Amino acid sequence: MREVAILGVAMTKFGVSEKTNVEMFAEAALEAMAQSNLEPKDMQALFFGNCLGDFEEGQLHMAPFAHSELGLPPTAPATRFEAACATATVAIRYAALLVAAGVYDVVLAGGAERACTMGTALATRTFAMASHAQHETTAGITFPGVFAMATHMYSQKYGIPLPELKKNMAEVAVKNHYHGAMNPKAHFQKEIDVDTVLGGMMVADPLQLFDCCPFSDGGSAIVIADARKARDLVEKPIYVAGTGQASGGPLYIQKDLTRVKAREYAFAEAAKQAGIGPDDVDVVELHDCFTTAEILALESFGIYEFGKAHDAAAKGETRLGGGGKVVVNPSGGLKSKGHPIGATGAGQVTEIVEQLRGEAGQRQVEGAKVGLVDTLGGDYGTVCNIILRS
Amino acid sequence: MREVAILGVAMTKFGVSEKTNVEMFAEAALEAMAQSNLEPKDMQALFFGNCLGDFEEGQLHMAPFAHSELGLPPTAPATRFEAACATATVAIRYAALLVAAGVYDVVLAGGAERACTMGTALATRTFAMASHAQHETTAGITFPGVFAMATHMYSQKYGIPLPELKKNMAEVAVKNHYHGAMNPKAHFQKEIDVDTVLGGMMVADPLQLFDCCPFSDGGSAIVIADARKARDLVEKPIYVAGTGQASGGPLYIQKDLTRVKAREYAFAEAAKQAGIGPDDVDVVELHDCFTTAEILALESFGIYEFGKAHDAAAKGETRLGGGGKVVVNPSGGLKSKGHPIGATGAGQVTEIVEQLRGEAGQRQVEGAKVGLVDTLGGDYGTVCNIILRS
Repeated sequence: MREVAILGVAMTKFGVSEKTNVEMFAEAALEAMAQSNLEPKDMQALFFGNCLGDFEEGQLHMAPFAHSELGLPPTAPATRFEAACATATVAIRYAALLVAAGVYDVVLAGGAERACTMGTALATRTFAMASHAQHETTAGITFPGVFAMATHMYSQKYGIPLPELKKNMAEVAVKNHYHGAMNPKAHFQKEIDVDTVLGGMMVADPLQLFDCCPFSDGGSAIVIADARKARDLVEKPIYVAGTGQASGGPLYIQKDLTRVKAREYAFAEAAKQAGIGPDDVDVVELHDCFTTAEILALESFGIYEFGKAHDAAAKGETRLGGGGKVVVNPSGGLKSKGHPIGATGAGQVTEIVEQLRGEAGQRQVEGAKVGLVDTLGGDYGTVCNIILRS
Repeated sequence: MREVAILGVAMTKFGVSEKTNVEMFAEAALEAMAQSNLEPKDMQALFFGNCLGDFEEGQLHMAPFAHSELGLPPTAPATRFEAACATATVAIRYAALLVAAGVYDVVLAGGAERACTMGTALATRTFAMASHAQHETTAGITFPGVFAMATHMYSQKYGIPLPELKKNMAEVAVKNHYHGAMNPKAHFQKEIDVDTVLGGMMVADPLQLFDCCPFSDGGSAIVIADARKARDLVEKPIYVAGTGQASGGPLYIQKDLTRVKAREYAFAEAAKQAGIGPDDVDVVELHDCFTTAEILALESFGIYEFGKAHDAAAKGETRLGGGGKVVVNPSGGLKSKGHPIGATGAGQVTEIVEQLRGEAGQRQVEGAKVGLVDTLGGDYGTVCNIILRS
């Protein structure tokens, strides 16, 4: 397999947009191609992520329309991927694998989503279609409910009183908003404090409003290529060191909601390919759809032991400049940067690439050499991890 | 790249089903795995096609649920593909590419669709979301309308009077029903005659009811593996000789509706990989969503010259036992076997594999050695071709 590198990365501002999915993706894609010193005619394939375009704008089969909007060659096939929130990460993983295999030399990948259009309540119900339609959705569960249950179980399993756990969770939100306040592309660019989080509206007990990420509109794109070609074209190619994807199935087969088993498998695969361990990771963009989710993720990777990540943010260990073992979600994460479902993974890759290039400005993690992208699709159904290095 | 082979193929009976998408896929997948002398634990990935599960049964993110229904290992990632009607063909193409690349040794691929649930009128409108939402759907166009326009243009361009063309189109439907009547898995197992076609309800002038394929429910699955492994496991592995996928974009950028340019590119790529030309193909399963579509497809491949395929069925040249250059849609095609959108491509692969094994019974194309699978997604947006050989 060939070495693979990312040449260009871009994202629209995440937030509320008037643009279509294809228009948002095209905005990001044009910037990513320009950054790569390449043009649409140079793309050999498009791997496009979108989750619910049919509900959002009556648009199925969106990939060939993104393709034609950008003027890609007809011989460059456009393929849509959907893996709930992990949609774009999965698209990028397959792009990396097929470039590594020599099937394509240069691929455009990423995704877009208009998640705001429906409003939060309808969007919550609509995206709940990513849980099991017979055994979960019909029981009334939505994603906040899933992570609320996981929070209660975490509290019980590790004997951490709920008020203490909730304060630690609030610190996750505070940290991610602190980071997001420095990110001009973030949906929310505003710091918050623990009292704001603990005073928020109850969403699904014990998760309050600021424990939850928003729905966002946005698009994000990357250009990925054979590493030799990448080195000819850009000054700082960022290498794909390993990828992993695993399937957890529905909630009702999970034995322990405090363990996201699919993530353990996905990270193990990516880490093995990259030849690294959890302690080698300098910076992580992980799937903090809820504050609890960030805690669980850090334990899945083995960066923290099980039951030990809950106070990582409270201790400042995962904060920019906190001097801890790893900086987590310097972009602001889903919590503050936002969560345009089908674009989220590409937005995470964008942040990690900028960090590893040393071009993250105020949010720069000093000396970052190894970065991890982590995205969870559905309620434990799909996890995709990508490890990047400078 | 390694040589790749198909070990097992299966499909549910296409038609109207009470089963869920996942249940239909699982039924086919268990049969395909058993035929391959493999078990769910042996699968290293699942490439799953579904088009509109969110509209059909409130189920997005279906791949991991198909995965858990079958008890596949969590380390075998489940990925959903959607490319309108070409959904399963695209899933199978990527499975073949990743096995060829050595990323996976054994992959389960295919798809499912509950296209009947909505009824024909609502389904027609709903699946029209696979055309361009801003510039086509809003203008009132659905897929029968697209192929109606193509039919008028074909008549004009080649100077074939519409009544003559319609009679030739009717012969396509008659042939495909003749084949489908011999297929116990077909949605319609009933012969029809030209008068029936020409007496049918008008759908979109000049297309009448029997010019149109039905919506069907169904699932279909294949097991694909490294050829060396395949030879150890089954007596008659069928080899993937080449694949091609291309993107045509929306209808409004097509210069000539009588030419499906994406198919010309897709076939050229697959044929180049396979080292064959159009005259080497013994049997084709092609995308006869409408009778006109079969005619256009045969010209795209170069099996017939442009403007010359319209009377191929009328002359018996594409019929089983007709002594022509190639047998087209021996399964009955979409027209008679049925069209469960996300399963259709896998159903086509199933037929070609059975033909190349010499196990197609009454429908056997004598001495078939090279077979072509062709699926069109949307109105010229995606075409995927797979060439198989015994």
